[in-house]
Amino acid sequence: MLKRRDFLKVAGIGGAAALTTLSSGKVSHALVKWRMVTSWPPKFPILQEGAELFAKRVEEMSAGRMKIDVFAGGTLIPPLGGFDAISAGTVEMGSSASYYWPGKVPAAQFFTTVPYGFTFDEITAWLNGGGGLELWNEIYAPFNLVAIPMLNTGVQMGGWFRKEIKSVEDLKGLKMCVPGLGGKVMAKAGVSVVLLPGGERVPALEKGVVDAAEWVGPAHDLRLGFPKVAKYYYYPGWHEPGSQCELMINKKKWEELPKDLQAVIRAAAYEINNWSYAQFEMENAKALNEIRKQFPDVKFTRFPTDVLKVFRKLTNDVLAEEAAADKTGAFKKVYEAYLKFRKDMELWGDISARAYFKAEELR
Amino acid sequence: MLKRRDFLKVAGIGGAAALTTLSSGKVSHALVKWRMVTSWPPKFPILQEGAELFAKRVEEMSAGRMKIDVFAGGTLIPPLGGFDAISAGTVEMGSSASYYWPGKVPAAQFFTTVPYGFTFDEITAWLNGGGGLELWNEIYAPFNLVAIPMLNTGVQMGGWFRKEIKSVEDLKGLKMCVPGLGGKVMAKAGVSVVLLPGGERVPALEKGVVDAAEWVGPAHDLRLGFPKVAKYYYYPGWHEPGSQCELMINKKKWEELPKDLQAVIRAAAYEINNWSYAQFEMENAKALNEIRKQFPDVKFTRFPTDVLKVFRKLTNDVLAEEAAADKTGAFKKVYEAYLKFRKDMELWGDISARAYFKAEELR
Repeated sequence: MLKRRDFLKVAGIGGAAALTTLSSGKVSHALVKWRMVTSWPPKFPILQEGAELFAKRVEEMSAGRMKIDVFAGGTLIPPLGGFDAISAGTVEMGSSASYYWPGKVPAAQFFTTVPYGFTFDEITAWLNGGGGLELWNEIYAPFNLVAIPMLNTGVQMGGWFRKEIKSVEDLKGLKMCVPGLGGKVMAKAGVSVVLLPGGERVPALEKGVVDAAEWVGPAHDLRLGFPKVAKYYYYPGWHEPGSQCELMINKKKWEELPKDLQAVIRAAAYEINNWSYAQFEMENAKALNEIRKQFPDVKFTRFPTDVLKVFRKLTNDVLAEEAAADKTGAFKKVYEAYLKFRKDMELWGDISARAYFKAEELR
Repeated sequence: MLKRRDFLKVAGIGGAAALTTLSSGKVSHALVKWRMVTSWPPKFPILQEGAELFAKRVEEMSAGRMKIDVFAGGTLIPPLGGFDAISAGTVEMGSSASYYWPGKVPAAQFFTTVPYGFTFDEITAWLNGGGGLELWNEIYAPFNLVAIPMLNTGVQMGGWFRKEIKSVEDLKGLKMCVPGLGGKVMAKAGVSVVLLPGGERVPALEKGVVDAAEWVGPAHDLRLGFPKVAKYYYYPGWHEPGSQCELMINKKKWEELPKDLQAVIRAAAYEINNWSYAQFEMENAKALNEIRKQFPDVKFTRFPTDVLKVFRKLTNDVLAEEAAADKTGAFKKVYEAYLKFRKDMELWGDISARAYFKAEELR
């Protein structure tokens, strides 16, 4: 059926030119060249690495028919410029986290993480089976954006403290770097929230400008030098139990993309998502063992039960206030879907993973 | 660079013919047509569905350059004939579980699940970051097989019992359908293990031929009618805490495959792996709620603490015996790697996911 073949134009860019012809005539196209901006610093472990690995996979899987140039945060546009740039179509895609856009789409925070929210396995179930991804894309559509889950950090840590927290009283007036909804919850508990970029937190702790700061988890925290300037490493990361990052794509460009490349992008994102979670787990475990060895004076300390209970209660207050504040109704809609999913899964969760973990602890 | 293009032969099979040409000359090939056999019954929820969805994704992602015909268990070869057929190259690939081959590669059981083994998130970390997948492929290589993780069931259930188990004493002489290492552990606890195919377990329970039987989880168990014939539904599934199924490929055919199609297969498997876990979670949760509603006389019962402790101890005995019995040394090697990973992850696991789950339970 030679006459049914479409020979489309060859886009010769940077010396790489590809021509694909298919007798079906349904999928045939020239080289597609896209740009991806990320919110991660250059060479940032796992997250920036993962974005670059994703681009490599897409090129491999498409047999060179698609090439994505990756720009770390600040190298093409500012780290948090992705939402606007991708929405406008200035760049085609980005690797970021939906909770970086609370001023634009407050409801999108649920798709990264909220305090006392989902872990890696729970958000995987919600997004891929429980309607979460459909809802995310419904919320993003008015912004001309498409979201695909990519890069998950697993459970984060509660942060570094210069002094021990024995009760909720000890939080009052404490100066701490903790952004987002976790910060709002801690502010309600009396913490004086200070916002500083990641790189400025260790010096601020060292100089006593702040009393506490959270960052990511052992791997990233060790690298920045936190164990040298604070001695109480608090857990669990109740405020970020499994942050799901996003692959964000301009919706119009996505819809124009041939179906095969859409499928390639989607699958590559899932591969990298699994890879990133595995890397975080491994690297965090290694770094934690390293901190224990190198910094024997660092104490791994659990937040007191009363403090965790207060955080839990205040989380519900903060989420209710956010829902009331979002006049579009989107926050309320996603919050209700999130609560319904949690309720639907409750009995199963109790007798499956949670019951198993408890059984595993018996000796 | 037209003269560098390779025009390879077009394999016109079933009316679908594709020709891909690339100026790089590195990746160019004709239509690849493979067959996949599975261990799952036709239309088996999630697992057979997932294998078929995988084939669909590969066809989409390759823009029709690769087509995989999927044969459910028993439709081309017997459900457990995959290992030999793929090893010999009679068929190119299969969807199965490595613990179905204890007589051929006892060590491979670790890559599906062992009693008191890894959950979905833990095996994801082990395989993709902790060296598990490399070890799996090392163990499979002498059999001319390549493994890629695909399809994960999540935590299973402990099984259906016609009478309550109050202590280890109640297990003595109990006739139960429970295969694999879980069965060996229960046999050591005094259970009389009976091996029956999935479809024969409900009738056997109904007739009192057996006193207990395990199958998968609420979704599959409800479908087969277990709640009608047994009233105690035991948890947790200590014997299968997160069964990781496999995509098994003939090694020689895999190595002959163009790199782009290798990458496509790998990524599609990861996408389907996430999808399957999400489906299991959702469908199990739904079915459990349904069982509670439709069968109010069914009791969801936790194994007594003493019984779980005995299972744990006997699991260690069984694994040690299996290691001693495998004269190739492979079981011991994988067991040691599994224990090392568990030990390396222990501190991190305790203060991350496990600590978070406990914090979440506080009210």
